[in-house]
Amino acid sequence: MMGKGFRQKIRQKNTENSGFGNNSSGRFINKDGLPNVQRRGVNVFNRLSWYHTMLNLSSFRFISYLVAAYILINLGFAFIYYLIGVEHLTGIDKSDPLNEFVDVFFFSSQTFTTVGYGRIAPVGFTASLVATFEAFLGLLTFAIATGLFYGRFSRPRAYLRFSDISVIAPFQGTAALMFRLAPYKNNALTDADVIVSTAIEVIENGVSKNNFYRLDTQLSKINTLALNWTVVHLINESSPFYSFSEEDFKNTNIEIIVQIRAFDEVFSNTVVQRTSYRSNEIIYGAKFTPMYYPSRDNLTTVLNLDKINEYQKADIPVLTEIQS
Amino acid sequence: MMGKGFRQKIRQKNTENSGFGNNSSGRFINKDGLPNVQRRGVNVFNRLSWYHTMLNLSSFRFISYLVAAYILINLGFAFIYYLIGVEHLTGIDKSDPLNEFVDVFFFSSQTFTTVGYGRIAPVGFTASLVATFEAFLGLLTFAIATGLFYGRFSRPRAYLRFSDISVIAPFQGTAALMFRLAPYKNNALTDADVIVSTAIEVIENGVSKNNFYRLDTQLSKINTLALNWTVVHLINESSPFYSFSEEDFKNTNIEIIVQIRAFDEVFSNTVVQRTSYRSNEIIYGAKFTPMYYPSRDNLTTVLNLDKINEYQKADIPVLTEIQS
Amino acid sequence: MMGKGFRQKIRQKNTENSGFGNNSSGRFINKDGLPNVQRRGVNVFNRLSWYHTMLNLSSFRFISYLVAAYILINLGFAFIYYLIGVEHLTGIDKSDPLNEFVDVFFFSSQTFTTVGYGRIAPVGFTASLVATFEAFLGLLTFAIATGLFYGRFSRPRAYLRFSDISVIAPFQGTAALMFRLAPYKNNALTDADVIVSTAIEVIENGVSKNNFYRLDTQLSKINTLALNWTVVHLINESSPFYSFSEEDFKNTNIEIIVQIRAFDEVFSNTVVQRTSYRSNEIIYGAKFTPMYYPSRDNLTTVLNLDKINEYQKADIPVLTEIQS
Amino acid sequence: MMGKGFRQKIRQKNTENSGFGNNSSGRFINKDGLPNVQRRGVNVFNRLSWYHTMLNLSSFRFISYLVAAYILINLGFAFIYYLIGVEHLTGIDKSDPLNEFVDVFFFSSQTFTTVGYGRIAPVGFTASLVATFEAFLGLLTFAIATGLFYGRFSRPRAYLRFSDISVIAPFQGTAALMFRLAPYKNNALTDADVIVSTAIEVIENGVSKNNFYRLDTQLSKINTLALNWTVVHLINESSPFYSFSEEDFKNTNIEIIVQIRAFDEVFSNTVVQRTSYRSNEIIYGAKFTPMYYPSRDNLTTVLNLDKINEYQKADIPVLTEIQS
Repeated sequence: MMGKGFRQKIRQKNTENSGFGNNSSGRFINKDGLPNVQRRGVNVFNRLSWYHTMLNLSSFRFISYLVAAYILINLGFAFIYYLIGVEHLTGIDKSDPLNEFVDVFFFSSQTFTTVGYGRIAPVGFTASLVATFEAFLGLLTFAIATGLFYGRFSRPRAYLRFSDISVIAPFQGTAALMFRLAPYKNNALTDADVIVSTAIEVIENGVSKNNFYRLDTQLSKINTLALNWTVVHLINESSPFYSFSEEDFKNTNIEIIVQIRAFDEVFSNTVVQRTSYRSNEIIYGAKFTPMYYPSRDNLTTVLNLDKINEYQKADIPVLTEIQS
Repeated sequence: MMGKGFRQKIRQKNTENSGFGNNSSGRFINKDGLPNVQRRGVNVFNRLSWYHTMLNLSSFRFISYLVAAYILINLGFAFIYYLIGVEHLTGIDKSDPLNEFVDVFFFSSQTFTTVGYGRIAPVGFTASLVATFEAFLGLLTFAIATGLFYGRFSRPRAYLRFSDISVIAPFQGTAALMFRLAPYKNNALTDADVIVSTAIEVIENGVSKNNFYRLDTQLSKINTLALNWTVVHLINESSPFYSFSEEDFKNTNIEIIVQIRAFDEVFSNTVVQRTSYRSNEIIYGAKFTPMYYPSRDNLTTVLNLDKINEYQKADIPVLTEIQS
Repeated sequence: MMGKGFRQKIRQKNTENSGFGNNSSGRFINKDGLPNVQRRGVNVFNRLSWYHTMLNLSSFRFISYLVAAYILINLGFAFIYYLIGVEHLTGIDKSDPLNEFVDVFFFSSQTFTTVGYGRIAPVGFTASLVATFEAFLGLLTFAIATGLFYGRFSRPRAYLRFSDISVIAPFQGTAALMFRLAPYKNNALTDADVIVSTAIEVIENGVSKNNFYRLDTQLSKINTLALNWTVVHLINESSPFYSFSEEDFKNTNIEIIVQIRAFDEVFSNTVVQRTSYRSNEIIYGAKFTPMYYPSRDNLTTVLNLDKINEYQKADIPVLTEIQS
Repeated sequence: MMGKGFRQKIRQKNTENSGFGNNSSGRFINKDGLPNVQRRGVNVFNRLSWYHTMLNLSSFRFISYLVAAYILINLGFAFIYYLIGVEHLTGIDKSDPLNEFVDVFFFSSQTFTTVGYGRIAPVGFTASLVATFEAFLGLLTFAIATGLFYGRFSRPRAYLRFSDISVIAPFQGTAALMFRLAPYKNNALTDADVIVSTAIEVIENGVSKNNFYRLDTQLSKINTLALNWTVVHLINESSPFYSFSEEDFKNTNIEIIVQIRAFDEVFSNTVVQRTSYRSNEIIYGAKFTPMYYPSRDNLTTVLNLDKINEYQKADIPVLTEIQS
């Protein structure tokens, strides 16, 4: 929070097309890049795209759901066959009810998966009819599973790792806001561009409101995103952070919103990834240390992804002078 | 309908690239965004893309079609097997013709789904041959079903809800045409832009014709489409609605055509949604009430989708003065 | 063919980025939009993308190929099982060699499709091993078939019908080259644009060469491609056809190359369609007759696709005067 | 390597958005277009996108992996069933342990592929349970295989062949750097554009660093990429190679980085292909010989792909004069 005096500092007029409003609250973009918005109204089913949901599940939970569904469906059908009566199925072990149910359950699974050994097989109308539809349902279910698997692993993703923190580093005699990112998988990204904007909370006549500013970067496009990319926003007159002191960065609610867009040559598709940095994720007076170097044999370049958050202290003389 | 005198009011020259003509009639774009055009000529099969049709079906009808097809195909093959003669199938219950047909039907379904218990199995050339092709057909059918399921749920869609009505609201001392939209599912849209145009029917020397105008909006692009977006067309000299009175809006055949385009990060694809507003869907002298607010804990923003059509009366002094 | 005198007529400098050369021959773009080029060298397998080939097959031929493959594969495996010896399969009808082969063939198909009734089943190592791999091969084959089916029907296509002929029609006191197109299926196209260029063969000092020119059109973009679109190239000073007489159009090797690009909302994808018109497909002194009209109830517009080639004679006074 | 004197020669200021750094080493882009970068840190599983990996495998290796997986999985399950005890499976040949294991293995494969002849079938709880999950696993495995097959062959690719070498050819009184490319499959590419840049290693006060320059081309876009495309970079004042002698080209570490982007009409997708040329792949004083010609019947154009690397000596008078 800061008062009117501070407000003067920001000369740039704020942009209006952030898509966020003044009286929204909390972080705008979560670390994972999704907007921090809660939807109400409409019923929950219309509010969820189950396909989006299935695609966003972790592999483990996705598989678990499939297995659970498989077991439940089979239990359901087993129950139905049991009600119809085991005498309508051949080869059932009738020694006791439990064995009967067990056999019926396995018959169900052999039908659902269309294995159909035939050791147990339906006889008569009702059981056969149910089996007919269970097999049909089974095939459709696996048709859907096929689609979901494909949807999940063919989903274009940027596979970028952002530095957890951004720094205010000395740059060209003044200071610059910097963060960096690097592709961490064996994907090839080209024609990458970055869009950086910021939300700054200000108090105007006692009311807190958010102003949004676009942040210019030294380089907004690069041809090949193979090494790390350090995005640099020079803090000069045209920057909303112009003449911000370390305290200002600390005491103001700032959010840096980042969007990277690139072309993935395997997916042949545009991929997008976003993240954001809040005041407490901005380190004042630091600079990143290099994270790539020539290989020993000098035949290739080595990118060390573990160093992405590595930085060292660095004074910012110019700005502090201004402050004094 | 309105006379020549009125015509004067519109100063802007009309655009020609709407894609619609002067002597077309009725609504141009339906509420659901599809053009209101009927195609004749060519035979109906060439005129339908069955894939587009299958993708546009409701889930319920889609499933119903699948089930119906499944039953019909099995009945068909059952009939064939029956004609070939049940003696060419093992394990048929020959107690009476009905039972025979029933068993033959289930054999067909067990073949089509490739369950193949084997309790009933083909013997001899003809029956085996038919079964051979039924199983083949079954697998191809489910191959197609798999594709359709995937095509249906992987189809990129914007999942936007538009306000049912658009309003003429007081704005910056004059009036503005406004409507709003909001994403209602857990999808993340970025880089959204809007294109708004209008068709106005005028009478020139007794002949009614449609003129098309592009409507400028205060904001034509936003970065993150997470909250609602109120699209604002300022009614000033450069607007075709300049100096329109409430009566003019009522008595003229107006259609506001809207197209939203955005990038969905899960589909990694551009999505488009369109709608339109006709004269009777434009409310004069009203303004929308806010539909999002900070959450109680101030950690997130809440978007209430049920409020999307909520508005309150609001006078439009300036314009009415002009009219008097 | 035409002499140097004629050459003077063309004032516009030719464009170089057609992608075609001067000493290429014959039509450049076939009526179906594919370039008229024959590739040599490289072996034929590397020269064919079998996926492109499968996608371009007619449905009938595609299915035929699948069926043929299915029969051949089964015959092959039947042969192998036969060599291994029918005694390694249970339930074979050993009455005579033919019946044996028939049963072996059906066993193969029951394995390939994974129906596996079990009436015939493998016993012992060799037969079981072959069956193991046939079932595996079967599943992979149907996996590929599934992909091909999906690839075929999810392939974005524009479904546009072009007029077979283009006309030189009177327009704004002078003449214009016109052709038209219309979407003929239930697909919704938006933001359509057209690129028209022409190749004109000229004789320079006895050598024939092709010059390429871009043709400007009255309208190069339209918002909604729901009705027919008549593309108009005005023949004025800046047109390579300026002051062309009817004879010139007849006697010159002209090719009009057309490319339409639009956005399909169901595929959420850009679709492209191309075609071309040669001298003998250009009708001098004609104009298209309207192909859409209001529906009787005035609630919708009717587009009659059968009229797309309908035109009537129309004099071109201005130009002929120039010629005289 | 070259000294400061040489440095003078290059007047153009270098571009910074190559995405590569000064202290990276070795080739930047490999011949196949992938960046020559080694990633360290993070564990290897997070560093690999297995989907990208599977898509980049050769067909042969891909199939081999599938077969291997199939055999291993079946061996695994066979072992489990064997431990459970063959008495829980019907129809096992109990003559000796090996036969038992063989039968159990084939039962496993019949379950995994859902053939399920039933000659061997599970009896009792444990065996049936394992079989239930094996069949389930089998179907999911083939669901994934289906997705991978589709992903592999539907993956948009440019299918372009680049000339292995680029040449410095006489052009318009001076010299030009040229290389060429041609589509070698039955795919139709339109709206192709090329981006060419170069990395030149220079020694500044003893330290070697890489400078990056954008290379302008005579033609950066062509409409239809059906024949070969010879990309021409004119070596004039604005070229970093201005007044380079043959020796300079030999003795300098130069890398020409090329990116082609085009629209494929079958995939309806943008496709990208890249390659690079190093000093030793640049031939000074040579020009390409034509690789397409009219067909004998003059009805089509023939493109001979085997000639793509064919060139002949050609003197470059102007430049050598400059050098002397």
